[in-house]
Amino acid sequence: MADAFDWGLLEPAASAGASAGDDAILDALVAVERALVLAWADLDGTDGSSAAAELDADTLDRDALVAGVRRDGIPVVALVEQLKGQAGERADRVHRGATSQDIVDTALMLSSRDVLAEARAQLATAGSALVALARRERGAPFIARTLSQEAEPTTLGGAVAAWLDTVSSALAAIDAAGFPVQLGGAVGTGEAFSRLAGRADAPTVLRASLANRLGLADPGRAWHTDRAPVLAVAAAAAQVCASAGRIGRDLALGARDGILLPDEGGSSSAMPHKRNPVDAVILSANGLRAGGLVATLHSAALSSDARPAGEWHAEWQAWRGLLRLAAESAAVLAHAVSHLVVTAPPVSAPASAVEAAGVVVDASLARFAALTPETEKPQ
Amino acid sequence: MADAFDWGLLEPAASAGASAGDDAILDALVAVERALVLAWADLDGTDGSSAAAELDADTLDRDALVAGVRRDGIPVVALVEQLKGQAGERADRVHRGATSQDIVDTALMLSSRDVLAEARAQLATAGSALVALARRERGAPFIARTLSQEAEPTTLGGAVAAWLDTVSSALAAIDAAGFPVQLGGAVGTGEAFSRLAGRADAPTVLRASLANRLGLADPGRAWHTDRAPVLAVAAAAAQVCASAGRIGRDLALGARDGILLPDEGGSSSAMPHKRNPVDAVILSANGLRAGGLVATLHSAALSSDARPAGEWHAEWQAWRGLLRLAAESAAVLAHAVSHLVVTAPPVSAPASAVEAAGVVVDASLARFAALTPETEKPQ
Amino acid sequence: MADAFDWGLLEPAASAGASAGDDAILDALVAVERALVLAWADLDGTDGSSAAAELDADTLDRDALVAGVRRDGIPVVALVEQLKGQAGERADRVHRGATSQDIVDTALMLSSRDVLAEARAQLATAGSALVALARRERGAPFIARTLSQEAEPTTLGGAVAAWLDTVSSALAAIDAAGFPVQLGGAVGTGEAFSRLAGRADAPTVLRASLANRLGLADPGRAWHTDRAPVLAVAAAAAQVCASAGRIGRDLALGARDGILLPDEGGSSSAMPHKRNPVDAVILSANGLRAGGLVATLHSAALSSDARPAGEWHAEWQAWRGLLRLAAESAAVLAHAVSHLVVTAPPVSAPASAVEAAGVVVDASLARFAALTPETEKPQ
Amino acid sequence: MADAFDWGLLEPAASAGASAGDDAILDALVAVERALVLAWADLDGTDGSSAAAELDADTLDRDALVAGVRRDGIPVVALVEQLKGQAGERADRVHRGATSQDIVDTALMLSSRDVLAEARAQLATAGSALVALARRERGAPFIARTLSQEAEPTTLGGAVAAWLDTVSSALAAIDAAGFPVQLGGAVGTGEAFSRLAGRADAPTVLRASLANRLGLADPGRAWHTDRAPVLAVAAAAAQVCASAGRIGRDLALGARDGILLPDEGGSSSAMPHKRNPVDAVILSANGLRAGGLVATLHSAALSSDARPAGEWHAEWQAWRGLLRLAAESAAVLAHAVSHLVVTAPPVSAPASAVEAAGVVVDASLARFAALTPETEKPQ
Repeated sequence: MADAFDWGLLEPAASAGASAGDDAILDALVAVERALVLAWADLDGTDGSSAAAELDADTLDRDALVAGVRRDGIPVVALVEQLKGQAGERADRVHRGATSQDIVDTALMLSSRDVLAEARAQLATAGSALVALARRERGAPFIARTLSQEAEPTTLGGAVAAWLDTVSSALAAIDAAGFPVQLGGAVGTGEAFSRLAGRADAPTVLRASLANRLGLADPGRAWHTDRAPVLAVAAAAAQVCASAGRIGRDLALGARDGILLPDEGGSSSAMPHKRNPVDAVILSANGLRAGGLVATLHSAALSSDARPAGEWHAEWQAWRGLLRLAAESAAVLAHAVSHLVVTAPPVSAPASAVEAAGVVVDASLARFAALTPETEKPQ
Repeated sequence: MADAFDWGLLEPAASAGASAGDDAILDALVAVERALVLAWADLDGTDGSSAAAELDADTLDRDALVAGVRRDGIPVVALVEQLKGQAGERADRVHRGATSQDIVDTALMLSSRDVLAEARAQLATAGSALVALARRERGAPFIARTLSQEAEPTTLGGAVAAWLDTVSSALAAIDAAGFPVQLGGAVGTGEAFSRLAGRADAPTVLRASLANRLGLADPGRAWHTDRAPVLAVAAAAAQVCASAGRIGRDLALGARDGILLPDEGGSSSAMPHKRNPVDAVILSANGLRAGGLVATLHSAALSSDARPAGEWHAEWQAWRGLLRLAAESAAVLAHAVSHLVVTAPPVSAPASAVEAAGVVVDASLARFAALTPETEKPQ
Repeated sequence: MADAFDWGLLEPAASAGASAGDDAILDALVAVERALVLAWADLDGTDGSSAAAELDADTLDRDALVAGVRRDGIPVVALVEQLKGQAGERADRVHRGATSQDIVDTALMLSSRDVLAEARAQLATAGSALVALARRERGAPFIARTLSQEAEPTTLGGAVAAWLDTVSSALAAIDAAGFPVQLGGAVGTGEAFSRLAGRADAPTVLRASLANRLGLADPGRAWHTDRAPVLAVAAAAAQVCASAGRIGRDLALGARDGILLPDEGGSSSAMPHKRNPVDAVILSANGLRAGGLVATLHSAALSSDARPAGEWHAEWQAWRGLLRLAAESAAVLAHAVSHLVVTAPPVSAPASAVEAAGVVVDASLARFAALTPETEKPQ
Repeated sequence: MADAFDWGLLEPAASAGASAGDDAILDALVAVERALVLAWADLDGTDGSSAAAELDADTLDRDALVAGVRRDGIPVVALVEQLKGQAGERADRVHRGATSQDIVDTALMLSSRDVLAEARAQLATAGSALVALARRERGAPFIARTLSQEAEPTTLGGAVAAWLDTVSSALAAIDAAGFPVQLGGAVGTGEAFSRLAGRADAPTVLRASLANRLGLADPGRAWHTDRAPVLAVAAAAAQVCASAGRIGRDLALGARDGILLPDEGGSSSAMPHKRNPVDAVILSANGLRAGGLVATLHSAALSSDARPAGEWHAEWQAWRGLLRLAAESAAVLAHAVSHLVVTAPPVSAPASAVEAAGVVVDASLARFAALTPETEKPQ
């Protein structure tokens, strides 16, 4: 088996991010090749299902894949060699007319959809916990701080509503992201699809069929050198990290101030008695890590020709890395807000402050509810 | 007058970006304060128009503003002092119940809307030129390159369509951005608005009125610590830079290959005979500059409390800087594609390649047309 | 006069950063052209001093410079036109054999040296204040925090020594930076220098002479496409921001905890009674802003040919921006630590903790003293 | 075994970067704990060698480590539990007085030293190949380009010398980096070392001994909140990526222009006939990826308290990621320049250009030779 180079030693929430790992990406690559076989079958009436059924990620020789990615700079050439072998006599149905970028881009979109769907579910769970907390602490006076200093009174519920707002913004960001298939062939025109199919509309028909088979969007074009779809997905993933990170900051500050503590804390190798706000720390750290990856994707968006000599390759790890961070942050956030003990001592506040905060709580709850119609409504 | 620290020496397209400069931002700050006076008048039936009319950006003491921003870390305290002076007896109508962040955030959103509207117009102009070019070169065979090497035939029209696609993506990104007002008062609950107005719905009513007065969106909440709206605007601005930068890369490579040249080039201090593709260079450079600023905004999105001790302040220049780059890149792109001479020698291509590229051109034109209904349709 | 596009509205410490502004850069550009005239005089025995004396930054037409930078993508072509006009009959002595990059790179190095020298002086001032504070609080027990939680006892002096260590690291980073002249001519070989001088060693001799005239280092080569010197200067400037920002974080947290307060604070437009730790906020914000600019310079370091089509141009504002941030952060830090009131309530600590912290203080003081031999030693 | 989450599918040069992988980092963590046992033995005369010999990375339960890093946010608590188990009766000699940050920071420095030493060797190999190439092409005229356009004549040797200069700069950057041990205990003062040893100088003595055992530098202090050493190592690693990436750009452009081709190219899944400049592509991509990681480290350098709640954790993957990229880029560069075929057609150039380029070649060779005294001198 290919040697692992990362297995979680330095990635505290690695298991939550497994859906963005190499195994999952390889599954997605094979799923795309399989769907392309079926799309061709949709187009030309051949029986694609048996050929598609032969394609199997689990039995691939991963060492050969790793050797191939070094040789070709892309994982697809070596992958297609093996998949053609799996398909046997039907080898010509595999990767028919496609280029590597079609497969990699579509697979990363497939992973993006799945990872962000999982992140959305975790965010909804976190939001539900925050809804309950905001309701419970709706009337609990609390002195808000600005620029580190005590400022004006609000309520704990009002502070929680501000967190809930960032969760809602992350949900909305995920909902706004689109996950289009990529299908353009060698230079973006899909000429080989037309030629092999003998019909000019083959690229259009295959693209629609591929999208349908995979449950992705049909963009009506190739975006091989227009990386807007990548930047949009990255923005959604980074927003998840920012939203969760912003709450993480407050959880850490709340633990500092002694008003919000995790019900169980991480221990320390030097001070076993400590109860560290580990979730808050991971959320803050992941929030800090997202921006650099987004920057890489913006630099890499300066594409050229019909495929640039480096920019596209620079995207993969940053793209996948942002998905991983989003998955981790959403899962850790869901854990964090479900393991929170409010220890703030009672303070007093004028009725006007409590009332004003209540309006904020109501608006925040309504916004979250509109974004999570599927969530069972708490009483 | 306050000393200028930047006046365009190192910013090749500075004049195009003037709408994101300090003068424009100051106008926006005053416009927000003025609209708030009027929003209060809407609420309580006082005559706000005369007080609002007193507020005048042009006669402000800018040295005092600059001294104030060092003293307070924000430009608004010193600004409000002066505006209250302008308002005279009606000083209490100025900045009533508001906090500095309300004014700065809303002013930057106002500038964002205006700068991106101007960028959109420039992109539409650039797109129209690309439409004409794609039509003209629709049947002109062209060997596309991938990873720097000649790959497969397409047409020049097909290559231009790929550029047009990135322009369309930038238009769509701008259209997707929202520009909400900020109004939350000291700690986000708008308590002072309620208290001063004597009605619990004052924050809600004032926010709606402020949005209406300024032509911005009413977000139905304060987003003082939820920086999703900032990240969304930044993403749109950065997409403009990426789209234009990606075309700039191809313009520079086309000039290298001797197939696309500017009809007039920049000269060189060492080689006066050269015809440098200056527009392409600026577009590429601005594209490279955007990512770092986006990264800063993601780091700064880790807000805390009801206003963090540094993160919010770290946003301003990065936010405004992205607007500047977007304005510049859109204007330079409009210039570049209108001053382009195709000097590619004729090559041959199979009919299937020309046909396939034609399908791509049609799809690209249709997408752009749908995004620019206001554009006069060329024949 | 050229319109200012930034004059300090959104840059709280703009005046401290003026030495990195356009006026200063223009002075540096002219200083380099002047020194090149003199270097030629050194080489060929002509009287260069009178020609050099004609070159005057103050009387340049800045609007023409700004128009030129848009036309040429670089400020030097239009600058040289004007300087040749100033030189009159001796116009041929101006910019003799040089290329724009020689002038811009060398001018930015000149500014880098000057700005970082000023930053160094401010850091030394800040460090001296920290030395005094560490001495005074050497025995004052203090409970250090890790991951936001109270951890183990140290002393306030020990905490201050950790700040002093970061100041020392910034000093060391500045000392490690080199500031080389750039002189390579059109394509880096200095061929025009040789040809015009009639001697093969002219590039070498002129480079040495230019370095000597400007007080910069002679790198013995052109680094037009090897941006290591730029990245090294950027790293030094960013280290200043990181060191000051790290202290700013603690100052803000100390203000939060009520143990460290500024002797005067910034006021708030909503809450005039507040005493905000403005210096700490600016330091933190500037620290957050530096990383994105460094990222831009790393992307821009992927040079190509004998001058790339965008990467070099992308450097200027990021490079100068880092200098500005470093100048600001150093000045604000010097102010911050001189206006600090310790309000920490007394706590107790075991003698071993006080003793251990004392060892740390001594080491920190010794390291700082070694880096600031010029500083008057406090008793 | 712990599930791998990355095994090289999307990392073309993963095997070259294996020395920065989790296995290698785990080895380093155990090596640090082992050296600390021995340092204690040096201090107190106990027999540490047998206890140290018990500590074995290979037999650790990695699933438990991964579970521990999620629980504690750091890998060290779970590691120390297992190591104490391995040490049996001598468990108290393990991790004696230390904190997790001591182990992680020192282990990452150990890996940094080893990875950058390997990168240095690869760079030296690449440089030697460039030396040979520069000599061979010393007199071959070549028209240099600036801003994509043909500019002035130089020689191919001169162009290669510019690449060699960037290799030399990377060597110099590695040589300038220091690799200090971290030893500060819970809050940076090493109080537990003193207390457990019964002598005030224990932290100082143990730190020196630890450094000596590991072959790292003794910084004479803890740098737990002064991240300058991390930023310095990151700068060196990123310089390797920039240097190699800059050459990669020229190799891709040379392949475009048809003047420099790899002797074997990567194939394409759509166009099997292509000979893609895969090495050039990887070098460019890695160069683009470095900046974002550096930005993350600068954001993370804003430490606070005696250990911040997120910033430190945000460093690990970015730090290790930069090492990986540096290792990969150096290895790929060594491969690339050894598999390069010059196919440039002959051009003519004036003797002055050839002569001027020759001076540049000589200077570049001399600089490289001074940085690689160990390299066998080619004739």
